[in-house]
Amino acid sequence: MGKDASERTAVGWAARDAGGRLSPYSYTLRKTGPEDVAIKVLYCGVCHTDIHQAKNHLGMSKHEVVGEVEEVGAEVTKFHAGDVVGVVLIVGCHPCKSSNEQYCSKKIWSYNDVYPDGKPTQGGFSSAMVVDQKFVVKIPAGMAPEQAAPLLCAGATVYSPLKRLSIAAPGLRGGILGLGGVGHMGVKIAKAMGHHVTVISSSDRKRGEAVGHLGADAYLVSSDAAAMAAAAGTLDYGLYTVPAHHPLEPYLALLRLDGKLVVMGVIGRPLSFASPALMLGRRSIAGSFVGSVEEAEETLAFCAASGVTSQALERLERNDVRYRFVVDVAGSNLVGDAA
Amino acid sequence: MGKDASERTAVGWAARDAGGRLSPYSYTLRKTGPEDVAIKVLYCGVCHTDIHQAKNHLGMSKHEVVGEVEEVGAEVTKFHAGDVVGVVLIVGCHPCKSSNEQYCSKKIWSYNDVYPDGKPTQGGFSSAMVVDQKFVVKIPAGMAPEQAAPLLCAGATVYSPLKRLSIAAPGLRGGILGLGGVGHMGVKIAKAMGHHVTVISSSDRKRGEAVGHLGADAYLVSSDAAAMAAAAGTLDYGLYTVPAHHPLEPYLALLRLDGKLVVMGVIGRPLSFASPALMLGRRSIAGSFVGSVEEAEETLAFCAASGVTSQALERLERNDVRYRFVVDVAGSNLVGDAA
Repeated sequence: MGKDASERTAVGWAARDAGGRLSPYSYTLRKTGPEDVAIKVLYCGVCHTDIHQAKNHLGMSKHEVVGEVEEVGAEVTKFHAGDVVGVVLIVGCHPCKSSNEQYCSKKIWSYNDVYPDGKPTQGGFSSAMVVDQKFVVKIPAGMAPEQAAPLLCAGATVYSPLKRLSIAAPGLRGGILGLGGVGHMGVKIAKAMGHHVTVISSSDRKRGEAVGHLGADAYLVSSDAAAMAAAAGTLDYGLYTVPAHHPLEPYLALLRLDGKLVVMGVIGRPLSFASPALMLGRRSIAGSFVGSVEEAEETLAFCAASGVTSQALERLERNDVRYRFVVDVAGSNLVGDAA
Repeated sequence: MGKDASERTAVGWAARDAGGRLSPYSYTLRKTGPEDVAIKVLYCGVCHTDIHQAKNHLGMSKHEVVGEVEEVGAEVTKFHAGDVVGVVLIVGCHPCKSSNEQYCSKKIWSYNDVYPDGKPTQGGFSSAMVVDQKFVVKIPAGMAPEQAAPLLCAGATVYSPLKRLSIAAPGLRGGILGLGGVGHMGVKIAKAMGHHVTVISSSDRKRGEAVGHLGADAYLVSSDAAAMAAAAGTLDYGLYTVPAHHPLEPYLALLRLDGKLVVMGVIGRPLSFASPALMLGRRSIAGSFVGSVEEAEETLAFCAASGVTSQALERLERNDVRYRFVVDVAGSNLVGDAA
C-alpha cells in the first residue's frame, strides 16, 4: 500500500484465529483530516465482551481508549496537542445529527468495522488512532488516564440508564445484578446519585465486597428463596450486568409497579421471561447500550465531582484484575510483524 | 350451608375437570353489604385466556361481565337498581387505595379466588354476583350491554397502554401484532387516537380485514423478510397480542429508538429475545395487564365518543365468532344441578 508523508504507521494487536491469542501487526492510519484528532493510545480497557470478540463469538466489541492528542485537524478547536482524551465505542457516524450516536444505524464501530474510505477501524489495541472530533471525549484535568479508561466504558454504560431513571424520580431503590466490571461501577454511581442499592448475586461470596467496600445498602443471594420473596416488589429498577443467561422472572419479581430491568450486556443466548412476570406489575425490560460521547463526558465529570473511582485502578495496583483491566498500550513497546 | 333471608342463590357454570366442559351448579351469594352492588348477569365475555383456564392450564382467568343492578348497599350512591353495569377482572382489594388495583398484590380475582369471608369468587359464568362498588363499572347510557362486555376487557386491555403511550407523545406510529380479539380492538382504538397503525401478521390472510375493514394504514407479513427489513426502526410501539410464543427479535427490530413492545397476554411458555435486539435502539419490552376500573370506564367513554364498536357484536350477528364471543348468560335459562 502506498503511503504519503502525512499518513502514519500504527502497530496494533489482533486476534488472527478463534483461539483468541493476540499478535502484533502494523498498518497505516488515515491522514488527519480537518475534523480529525490524531491520538497516541496510552491505555485501552478490556472487558468480557472483548474476550468474546477475540474468540470470534460476537460481531462487536467494546473498547475504552485513553490517549494523548498528537495532532489536530484545521477545523478542530476543542482539542489541542498534548490533551488527554478518550474514545469510546463509536468512531464515526456520517452524517449523524444525533447525540445518541451509539443508537444510530449508520454508526461506525471502533473495532471490526470500516470507515467510509474503506479503511478498517482498529480499536484500541493499537499504538495510535485518527478519530473524528465529534467522537473524542475530553478527560477532566487531574484525572489519571488509567483511571478514566474504565469510566469511559463501564462507567458510562451504567451512568446512562441510571441518569435517565433518576430524572424520572429521585431517591430510587435499585438492584445491581452481578458484581463484575459493570456491576461494581453500577453500585458506586447509583450510590453517588443517592439511591438505595441492593446487590443481587448468585452466592454469598461478594457480600463483604458489596456492602463493606462498595457501600451497597443490602445484599441478596438469588438462590435464597425466602430472602428473594421478602424483597419482592421493593425495587424501582434492576441493572442486569451479568454476562450470562439467567431466567429473568426472579429479578422481575423484585420490581415495584412500573419497575424496569435494564439489560446492558451482550449475552450468549436469548434471555427469557414468562409474560405474567412482566404484566403483573406493569414492569418492563429495557435495553441500554454504553453511553454517548456526551454521556461519557458527563460520566467523567460526575465521577470526578463525586469522588467515584474505578475499582480497576486499585486492583491493578494489587495485580488483581478480578473486575476490569486496562492494557498499558504505550508501555508495551509494540513491534509489528510487518513494520 | 345455612342460608338466611338476605342471601341469594345463583347458578353458575364451571369446568369440573381438565376436559374444559362447563356444567351448571348452584351456590349462595354473600349478603349485599353496605358497599356492595348485587348484579344480575346479562352477558359474559370469553377470550383465549378463558379457554386456558377452563382446561386448567393457567392460574387465572379474564372475564368481562355486564349485568343489571338488582340491589345496592346502604352506602352506595353511584349505582341504582336497574342500572346496567360492568365488572372486569378484579372484584376486591382490601384495603386498596390505588386506582391501579389490577396491579395490587392484595387483589381478589373475579374467578378462582376467595373473598376475605372465605367464599369463592365465581366469575361471570353465573346468574348473579355481589361486588364491592369500587369494582363496578358504569356503562354509558345508550351503549348496548352486549357491546360493552368486550370493550371492558379487550378494549381496556389495549386502551390502558395506548393511552399511556399517547400521553408521552401524540401522533405515534404503532404496530399491532396479531389480529384476534385484543388485536382488533387495538387497531380500532389506536386509529381513534390518531395513530398510524400497521398490522403485523404471520400470513397475508387478514390483510383485507385489517386494511379494508378495520382501517389499518399498513399490513406486514412477518415471514416477508424484505418487507420486515424495510419497516425496521419505524414504529414507536408494538402491541404483542398474539396468544402464542414467537421470538421477539423480528418485532423489536421494527421499533425506533426508545420504542416499546407491550406484552399483554399470558403466553404458554417464556418469551425470549437476544439482548442486542433490546440494547441497540434502547428499546424495551413492557408488560400491561387489563385495565383498572377507572380505565375501563374511560375506555367505554372513549369508544362511545369516537364511535369505536367491538367487532364481536357484528360477528355474533353473523354467527361468526372468529374474534371474541359473549355468552348470553341471562338468556341461557340455567338450572343448577344442586339447585
